[in-house]
Amino acid sequence: MASTTNPLYASLSAKPSLPKPNNNSSSDLFVRVQNVNAVSLRSSFVSRTTAVELIGGGNSVLSATRMGSRSMICASSAQVVDQSPSKTDSKVPTIVEVDLGSRSYPIYIGSGLLDQPELLQRHVHGKRVLVVTNNTIAPLYLDKVVDALTRGNPNVSVDSVILPDGEKYKDMDTLMKVFDKAIESRLDRRSTFVALGGGVIGDMCGYAAASFLRGVNFIQIPTTVMAQVDSSVGGKTGINHRLGKNLIGAFYQPQCVLIDTDTLNTLPDRELASGLAEVIKYGLIRDAEFFEWQEKNLKSLLARDPSALAYAIKRSCENKAEVVSLDEKESGLRATLNLGHTFGHAIETGFGYGQWLHGEAVAAGMVMAVDLSYRLGWIDDSIVKRVHQILREAKLPTAPPETMTVEMFKSVMAVDKKVADGLLRLILLKGPLGNCVFTGEYDKKALDETLHAFCKS
Amino acid sequence: MASTTNPLYASLSAKPSLPKPNNNSSSDLFVRVQNVNAVSLRSSFVSRTTAVELIGGGNSVLSATRMGSRSMICASSAQVVDQSPSKTDSKVPTIVEVDLGSRSYPIYIGSGLLDQPELLQRHVHGKRVLVVTNNTIAPLYLDKVVDALTRGNPNVSVDSVILPDGEKYKDMDTLMKVFDKAIESRLDRRSTFVALGGGVIGDMCGYAAASFLRGVNFIQIPTTVMAQVDSSVGGKTGINHRLGKNLIGAFYQPQCVLIDTDTLNTLPDRELASGLAEVIKYGLIRDAEFFEWQEKNLKSLLARDPSALAYAIKRSCENKAEVVSLDEKESGLRATLNLGHTFGHAIETGFGYGQWLHGEAVAAGMVMAVDLSYRLGWIDDSIVKRVHQILREAKLPTAPPETMTVEMFKSVMAVDKKVADGLLRLILLKGPLGNCVFTGEYDKKALDETLHAFCKS
Repeated sequence: MASTTNPLYASLSAKPSLPKPNNNSSSDLFVRVQNVNAVSLRSSFVSRTTAVELIGGGNSVLSATRMGSRSMICASSAQVVDQSPSKTDSKVPTIVEVDLGSRSYPIYIGSGLLDQPELLQRHVHGKRVLVVTNNTIAPLYLDKVVDALTRGNPNVSVDSVILPDGEKYKDMDTLMKVFDKAIESRLDRRSTFVALGGGVIGDMCGYAAASFLRGVNFIQIPTTVMAQVDSSVGGKTGINHRLGKNLIGAFYQPQCVLIDTDTLNTLPDRELASGLAEVIKYGLIRDAEFFEWQEKNLKSLLARDPSALAYAIKRSCENKAEVVSLDEKESGLRATLNLGHTFGHAIETGFGYGQWLHGEAVAAGMVMAVDLSYRLGWIDDSIVKRVHQILREAKLPTAPPETMTVEMFKSVMAVDKKVADGLLRLILLKGPLGNCVFTGEYDKKALDETLHAFCKS
Repeated sequence: MASTTNPLYASLSAKPSLPKPNNNSSSDLFVRVQNVNAVSLRSSFVSRTTAVELIGGGNSVLSATRMGSRSMICASSAQVVDQSPSKTDSKVPTIVEVDLGSRSYPIYIGSGLLDQPELLQRHVHGKRVLVVTNNTIAPLYLDKVVDALTRGNPNVSVDSVILPDGEKYKDMDTLMKVFDKAIESRLDRRSTFVALGGGVIGDMCGYAAASFLRGVNFIQIPTTVMAQVDSSVGGKTGINHRLGKNLIGAFYQPQCVLIDTDTLNTLPDRELASGLAEVIKYGLIRDAEFFEWQEKNLKSLLARDPSALAYAIKRSCENKAEVVSLDEKESGLRATLNLGHTFGHAIETGFGYGQWLHGEAVAAGMVMAVDLSYRLGWIDDSIVKRVHQILREAKLPTAPPETMTVEMFKSVMAVDKKVADGLLRLILLKGPLGNCVFTGEYDKKALDETLHAFCKS
């Protein structure tokens, strides 16, 4: 595992050529070519992603990733910093690029990034900013964000709108408060919306930005693991309808995602675990090596070891960025990111928004998807056991709430976005760990069996 | 003027080569190369648009237009039909193509198009359709549209939602009824929304389609002149906010626009005149020849002469399609389509949505923009007189309602979408007839003078 506590970075040209070995530098770097991400080798994306790792003193210190036509180097070791005291700025971020042509953007990951005004300010368009946040996050980070937006930048004026916290407020009435504030503040097309908070804030602010004056720029500053590893990346925005989750929204990409890992210091344990459900998901659907790393490092993650969290966030973002780059509008591949979500959404909708956290519902949903995959004979029971094991260790649910019925599942799943011409398509594991399929071709009796196995009625 | 009562059409390859003269055909066609649109010669778009007109018996019968990489031939004369009785299908449409790369789509214009199921059905994706219409249009055309969608096509099921008629219902509460119906009807991502009605229905249905499940296909069937010449083309969708018009929405393109000119038979006179305001706008901002044609043919338009209306619709759509193709997201050129709209929106918002029709407010707004252009010394008084003359003849207002105050104009104009970093940019006429500018660089005193000239307080 690469340590990411004290990262530094530099830009490479877009050429696919690799940096040459450099044995004369003070840190004795040498070059080792390898794949950043195990899944790249397995999948058909090998040709899109090449990577270089520069090794210093036996530890991984620099890695260069090329995705599409963009290149970057991310450095991640205390060792380099120890040897170069003039570069001990602990706040230089790791960067993961989401490659979407003209709509590409960087994800900055690191400690203390909110203390670096230039990072945010380079992505602010126009002179007016609206920060959208909630009443839990505002007292903790709003002043810091306003300072980061305005320090040394007197031309920019910042307004904010503070929404009530919670999934149950991810609705049209609450969204209208954002529009009201934007219009009252006379924001124009050159304004920038900033989402400061978890997934609910990011989704609502993003959809508001997509719709206000038919589209203004926006920036994501996610403050939960859930938002940092999943919802802030990839441009899915929207709100819930009383009959289903995220049924109203837009695909709309941010200018950048800024992940200051220090914001996790204030995150409740239950929220932390909820976010880990999505981290575990990446391992199951496409990155077995990452899943194995999680099995070994789950205690460190739960204990909030900063380098473990930073690595889990970075690797999750790399997985998500690659999938989104290949399938922005979810014509196929991207749907695989929804392992467990169809069952999970049914739990959230049927059980009431906000009763369970999203990741808790997804965890139970993943167990159900894994159960179905096993019933279909697509995976062996060792995977079933490992999924139960890691979720239990993360203190996540491994079954839906007792009040859920088969009928509740069926009625919500019928309006799932992955239904096409009446057929419900699901993400199911198939083959060795790290492989999945998105399909409507499965035995519907097996689905019934799974639902009955997890519901009393 | 080309007659368009009995059009026929054929597709050309995308090559820029012109069809060869054909003097041997039964209808004695020959080729005349000319510009479809006078503005193409004047403007910088000449290289993008070439046209061929095939003349039969002295009357214009066929014209081929190339826009970008797409080509088509539109035929428009009773004479050809008279000479080829086997082709007397009066329902073959004129086609204007909106060239937006992968999001390109055709505008079909003609009489009796709703009696041709294949036209609509080729653009329906998936098996489920939701027709969005209002309580004025539903009794007149809903059955006809449902029949056109389903005849010979038993796999398709059609639901409909009937909204109250009027601009004052173009709001979030009414939009939610569309989502409610779509979800209750279990529509999925492969569904198609169909907007059947005027501009309000088209804008709301389009925004609902853009947002439902983050985007489903939609089709525009505009039934007013206003919607046929302007709002149904170009992908601007949205709803009003109590503080301003169209402040919430999306750029979202339809699969096709189907204009059955027969639907104008049921249009009230006041609505007809309102639509003509936008027709007149195209002449003023970019098509002096079209404006001159309107001056000569206004009586025919008001008398609903079918061929005059069809020509006005076709030429308006050509103008709009060209502008939208060049500037889909309104970074500059497209804004010129809003001549008079900043003043007009202020009238609609200040005076109350639905008191005046959109085109009535735009007409008064155009007079104010022309007044300001004249005060700035940018146009001569002959243009001012001609604008007053044609609007009066169309029975459109040439001044805002008496209750409008300078302050009402200023407060609404301050939240106009064309404000950028606090500066209000306006579309103003400049130079000979058919030329305009979109600019924030004008004497603000002159704007004050215009507002005071048209308001009592």
